[in-house]
Amino acid sequence: WQQHEVELHQMAVLSSTTTDGHEVLLKTNIQTSSEVEAAKACGASGIGLFRSEFLFMESLENPSEERQFEVYKQVIEAMAPKPVTIRTIDIGGDKVVSGLGIDEKNPILGWRAVRFCLSRKDIFTVQLRALLRASVYGKLQIMFPMISGVEELNAVLHLLEHVKGECRNEHIPFDPDIKVGTMIEVPSAALCADILAKKVDFFSIGTNDLIQYTIAVDRGNEKIAYLYQPFHPGVLRSIKMIVQMAHENNIPVSLCGEMASDPFCSVLLAGMGLDELSMGSQSLLQVRKILRSVSYKEAKALAEHVLDMDSYLTITTYIREWMHDRFDHFTTI
Amino acid sequence: WQQHEVELHQMAVLSSTTTDGHEVLLKTNIQTSSEVEAAKACGASGIGLFRSEFLFMESLENPSEERQFEVYKQVIEAMAPKPVTIRTIDIGGDKVVSGLGIDEKNPILGWRAVRFCLSRKDIFTVQLRALLRASVYGKLQIMFPMISGVEELNAVLHLLEHVKGECRNEHIPFDPDIKVGTMIEVPSAALCADILAKKVDFFSIGTNDLIQYTIAVDRGNEKIAYLYQPFHPGVLRSIKMIVQMAHENNIPVSLCGEMASDPFCSVLLAGMGLDELSMGSQSLLQVRKILRSVSYKEAKALAEHVLDMDSYLTITTYIREWMHDRFDHFTTI
Ligand SMILES: [Mg+2]
Ligand SMILES: [Mg+2]
Repeated sequence: WQQHEVELHQMAVLSSTTTDGHEVLLKTNIQTSSEVEAAKACGASGIGLFRSEFLFMESLENPSEERQFEVYKQVIEAMAPKPVTIRTIDIGGDKVVSGLGIDEKNPILGWRAVRFCLSRKDIFTVQLRALLRASVYGKLQIMFPMISGVEELNAVLHLLEHVKGECRNEHIPFDPDIKVGTMIEVPSAALCADILAKKVDFFSIGTNDLIQYTIAVDRGNEKIAYLYQPFHPGVLRSIKMIVQMAHENNIPVSLCGEMASDPFCSVLLAGMGLDELSMGSQSLLQVRKILRSVSYKEAKALAEHVLDMDSYLTITTYIREWMHDRFDHFTTI
Repeated sequence: WQQHEVELHQMAVLSSTTTDGHEVLLKTNIQTSSEVEAAKACGASGIGLFRSEFLFMESLENPSEERQFEVYKQVIEAMAPKPVTIRTIDIGGDKVVSGLGIDEKNPILGWRAVRFCLSRKDIFTVQLRALLRASVYGKLQIMFPMISGVEELNAVLHLLEHVKGECRNEHIPFDPDIKVGTMIEVPSAALCADILAKKVDFFSIGTNDLIQYTIAVDRGNEKIAYLYQPFHPGVLRSIKMIVQMAHENNIPVSLCGEMASDPFCSVLLAGMGLDELSMGSQSLLQVRKILRSVSYKEAKALAEHVLDMDSYLTITTYIREWMHDRFDHFTTI
């Protein structure tokens, strides 16, 4: 066991490159600045998802622009020159914020994330200002959650330009090349990925929500949680389509749902062409170890093979056997 | 106005055929047997959707097999030889049934329709038996709601075969050529339409739910109901994909959501290749009149044109103008 730990530790300074030289960037998901050290310790290629909403869980009117600026700056500075992707406020759904004063019958299909932000521009604008101010301390990327179509994306991009204009007027410096991306987690966004790709610098697939919406299943509902199937052919086809449309438009695609941290998915996701996977630090070295022991060629063949299958059961069984054949003691990887 | 009524009345004996000879079958949606007369009066090509769940709204344990058989028989007999598509119990979601004893956080993403039926086979089996018994009195088609993947479809088809076997053993006659179809209203089903098409005789697209899931929006939620967009390019692409996969597998596709009864959608839906539209009787003659006044060629050109557009606003504006140009006094059609 100790030897295993040592071996994993050595992984921290290596790249996540397959045996035939294809690199998949592995980044980490964080929700507080205190997690940055762990991300650096495992040799993450950046922060792929900083869940900014955790700053807002106590009160939506707070934190102030100043307080937000400090937190964002701290993370960006600590990771520099590696990139930090900060997701704008993603509340609602299962992330209830006190004082929001809404009681929805179907919160997961409700007033959440960018839908909330676009109707509370007072709060959203303060966040965008704090982000822009912090952008000069390293490499910030801004990401919008729950975008469902091009009108919503246009609206947030327009607001961002407006806030940039304000900053210019007030001589507040910000990174003029700041990259902007959108999460793809609503099926309509996946179906229109080609349209959205022309407007942003990167995609990040949020599989947790994408799976819930695609299969119409609240995974928190015990009665039907069995339908939450990451390997459903509809989900895999959707991911494939997103990757294809992104690459046709020359932008990279990350994946930041739980699938990214599940070693069972690593080879498949690499084979499907994901450029980055973002996960909790505790999973990163395991995923890196797996990716370093397979070839991109066999990963692509695996992806192609299961994408031809018609049921999640067949796909799941096949991937389990595939992984078992290659990773003898899978549980200890 | 009176002349308009007379004109519409004359439509009842005509077919829903475009000026260049392409017929779209118009059927009606009903929820009680008393609505059959209105369906016949407007010259419907059949019942496209009989919402059987209304029989169960008072109690799930009732009605008995006998009572169900009587209701199904009555509708099937009255419409014969025209087909009657009966949808199996579609409760849950926004259709709450007393005594179900569940309290879900997101009922629309919950234990509903075929998910409910597969876990309450006692109730489901009784319905299937009643349907089979009634099938000899005309032309019954059975349709399953909320199918999300091939495992679920296999499970209901398997159960239906089992009940058929029981009937055979008990010498209960049923139509051996009974057609079986599935609703396509879950995005994963749309994405796997080619797989599902190989297992059934027809599709019916339930746009109300398909739109809700595709855009991740509860249309009953005032805060975000504006996102419920039938002309979202993601929704139209999804419908197009379903139609294409159905036709590649030689099965017809109906559409039974509210879009079917909205005159603004009629030409577009015909142009997208829908074989049937099913709607409330009160809309049928208006839709027929519209379809009889356009050519399939121009309908297809319209569909092709808007499917190239990138936002629901652009598409909606374009269709509104297109319809206005052709139907001068649109409101009186
Ligand atoms: Mg999400
Ligand atoms: Mg439905």
